[in-house]
Amino acid sequence: MKTSRRDFIQKTSVVAAGALLLSEQALAFDSGTKTRVRLGFIATGFRGQTHIEEMLKRSDVDIIALADPDPRMINDALALIAKAGRPAPAVYQNGPDDYLQLLARTDIDAVFIASPWEWHLPHGIAAMKAGKIVGMEVGGAMKLADCWAYVKTSEQTKIPIMPLENVCYRRDVMAILNMVRKGFFGEIIHAQGGYEHDLRGVLFNDGKSAYNSGVEFGAKGYSEAAWRTNHYLNRNGELYPTHGLGPVATMLDLNRGNRLVRLSSFSSKARGLHEYIVKHPKGGAAHPNAQIAFKQGDVVTTHLQCANGETIILTHDTSLQRPYNLGFRVQGTKGIWQDFGWGDPEQGHIYFEDAMKHSHRWDNTKSWLEAHDHPLWKQNAAAAESSGHGGMDYFVDNAFIECIKQNQPFPLDVYDLATWYAITPLSEKSIAENGAPQDIPDFTKGNWKTRQPIFGFDANY
Amino acid sequence: MKTSRRDFIQKTSVVAAGALLLSEQALAFDSGTKTRVRLGFIATGFRGQTHIEEMLKRSDVDIIALADPDPRMINDALALIAKAGRPAPAVYQNGPDDYLQLLARTDIDAVFIASPWEWHLPHGIAAMKAGKIVGMEVGGAMKLADCWAYVKTSEQTKIPIMPLENVCYRRDVMAILNMVRKGFFGEIIHAQGGYEHDLRGVLFNDGKSAYNSGVEFGAKGYSEAAWRTNHYLNRNGELYPTHGLGPVATMLDLNRGNRLVRLSSFSSKARGLHEYIVKHPKGGAAHPNAQIAFKQGDVVTTHLQCANGETIILTHDTSLQRPYNLGFRVQGTKGIWQDFGWGDPEQGHIYFEDAMKHSHRWDNTKSWLEAHDHPLWKQNAAAAESSGHGGMDYFVDNAFIECIKQNQPFPLDVYDLATWYAITPLSEKSIAENGAPQDIPDFTKGNWKTRQPIFGFDANY
Repeated sequence: MKTSRRDFIQKTSVVAAGALLLSEQALAFDSGTKTRVRLGFIATGFRGQTHIEEMLKRSDVDIIALADPDPRMINDALALIAKAGRPAPAVYQNGPDDYLQLLARTDIDAVFIASPWEWHLPHGIAAMKAGKIVGMEVGGAMKLADCWAYVKTSEQTKIPIMPLENVCYRRDVMAILNMVRKGFFGEIIHAQGGYEHDLRGVLFNDGKSAYNSGVEFGAKGYSEAAWRTNHYLNRNGELYPTHGLGPVATMLDLNRGNRLVRLSSFSSKARGLHEYIVKHPKGGAAHPNAQIAFKQGDVVTTHLQCANGETIILTHDTSLQRPYNLGFRVQGTKGIWQDFGWGDPEQGHIYFEDAMKHSHRWDNTKSWLEAHDHPLWKQNAAAAESSGHGGMDYFVDNAFIECIKQNQPFPLDVYDLATWYAITPLSEKSIAENGAPQDIPDFTKGNWKTRQPIFGFDANY
Repeated sequence: MKTSRRDFIQKTSVVAAGALLLSEQALAFDSGTKTRVRLGFIATGFRGQTHIEEMLKRSDVDIIALADPDPRMINDALALIAKAGRPAPAVYQNGPDDYLQLLARTDIDAVFIASPWEWHLPHGIAAMKAGKIVGMEVGGAMKLADCWAYVKTSEQTKIPIMPLENVCYRRDVMAILNMVRKGFFGEIIHAQGGYEHDLRGVLFNDGKSAYNSGVEFGAKGYSEAAWRTNHYLNRNGELYPTHGLGPVATMLDLNRGNRLVRLSSFSSKARGLHEYIVKHPKGGAAHPNAQIAFKQGDVVTTHLQCANGETIILTHDTSLQRPYNLGFRVQGTKGIWQDFGWGDPEQGHIYFEDAMKHSHRWDNTKSWLEAHDHPLWKQNAAAAESSGHGGMDYFVDNAFIECIKQNQPFPLDVYDLATWYAITPLSEKSIAENGAPQDIPDFTKGNWKTRQPIFGFDANY
């Protein structure tokens, strides 16, 4: 049944598929098609600036206004815009609530939100209530109730929100998705992913330059060190689930024929941040921050169970020395992919017993990924080339803008955002309860059974 | 404190270390030193035969008797012994209980037990009660109470039992253990391992030849298909925990300064065995075995928490097509090892930020494993060369025999056996309870706090 549904969508023309999808409740809004999108930016830190840079390459958007209480970040963003020869946007930098003035404007269609995690909820809810379509940077929720708030607000206001999960668009990930849909892996049984990225040099700095410059954080830190590190101080959970989960969520049709039903999380001890402070030339055992006990375990692993019987393991591993590796694994009845790098095509192992004549030997991924390059990448690689994070940022931001222009549902929507964000508070609760399983809410309220997969089915976005 | 304890053991001569260890409760038995060991074999199937072959290479053992109700297996074992020019042993093959006659003999010091999992308990308990030292093939317990039975029987009879976990002796695993002890990894935070081995061609055959020959099992199957597959029919859990857990258990000092405190297991759906039957030339959708619903999930993952704060993930993945890979990972504050093969030295990634000048790039393991080859391997590689499973079998069996001869405690003992075997019933219970965490008993009754690590500290065994 699943195969025939996919076949149906694959065989259907883009227009017909759009018509089909328009009839779904997923497309709650109808703002009509547009030739241009007028944008506001809430939070113009480093991540917000990469979205601004993406938008500055486009001739179909206007940057109307920026909001950020940090003048340094506002000025950096304004410099980017000026350098591109674009008109200077309006600026809202009078404290943390000035973004409300940006949202009150009537000349903005949509906003990018790239604020600290604890601000995602107020920024996102206020934006939807103000009628602004939302592109939300990724993170995890502070509380489970936040996830329901996104869903309820989006449903009530009929304003859509898209989680800007760029790794869903990583070239190897999309090639694997392509192969999953072509049936190379058979029925998917198990998947893994994570955020395995040594962030110590990001979580601490000297308050002036962002990376590897010191051991300060919070009020004395700069950029992510000013806020992200506080989450490691007071929380213990899967703090950043979406880079690992998003890519496998699309392959497993989560919220569209499948859903997450429960999780259990375990946490290791916390040593990495303390050792980093102690060993840093600007730190040392006598530094005040060396006296702090960080609560976040160095390695947090989360088991997830899907309604259709698949299992997923997510790993959050950001406070130890290690090479970057999101650790993807996709395993089905006919094939298995194991990633160990940062998306370069040769950085993976793959095996299909029929194609490899039952050799029981891994093959390198390169030739497979190239042969099954996703149409989206094949058609847009040149456009993506100069974009952030190996081109992923081009695609995620392009999808956001194109869906708004074409009045189409986002390929990743509020139900995905709520589900992915929910991993964080549920994993915290599970760890606090010694690994006790936690039910994951069905934010679609049963509609997952009939909602159709729409992510990455063509070369458009 | 941990470092100084290790330093102490490392700096202590072999004789002094022995004296230290003799004073521990770990060495419950005292049978005096021996120049020869007189052996019985309970179960002489394929695995039992590999132990017989190991013993036939030695001049310090006598094979006194064999017990197995299957005349084909007995005859194969007798043929091996005759071919080696050794005296024919006594044979006990009159039904499943004839091994009790073997155990009643007074001219046997020790027995190898390599029977189906469901026979490990009666065979092992009867052997200890009969005063025979036990080398027990690996597996998992049927019930948690079985694990306590091993411990209580060994303590009451003062007869030791060693789990014959050969992967603890894999060359790359021992080199990593060596590097762990030298401090290359810093403080260990997280580990992974598993049994990721496509067993479909073992779990089914034609009842005559063991591998890839058909789709029969149970009464119509041969060798492992005659018994192992029944566990997949009626159980769902981490059925075979020790290959993945044993190697990291020695690195984490489990039961010797550390212990496992709890686990949670998740199971995927079961598809692999059914599809294998349907696709096999001798099977097909109409074959009676294609109508069977196997209970064992294709991928079972188990989270484990250690008393000292480390986490472990174990994976049981034996019913899908895939390359063999136990999937080891050892991650500390200073280094990380990720295995993706079957023990060949180049099949792994390794990273130490200091040695690799903060490159954030994986290095291949080969040069590291060779530079830190464990003394045991360095000294005995030639002797191990012809032995089963890449030489691992030589070492595990050699340790068993040498400890008996030298009247030394086994490097892996009854507490390890009980702890490792307990993973199976506890994981079954966890899965049956939707991932609910299960406490792992402290089989050492508190002695883990003072018991000293003894595995793999020198070049002897």
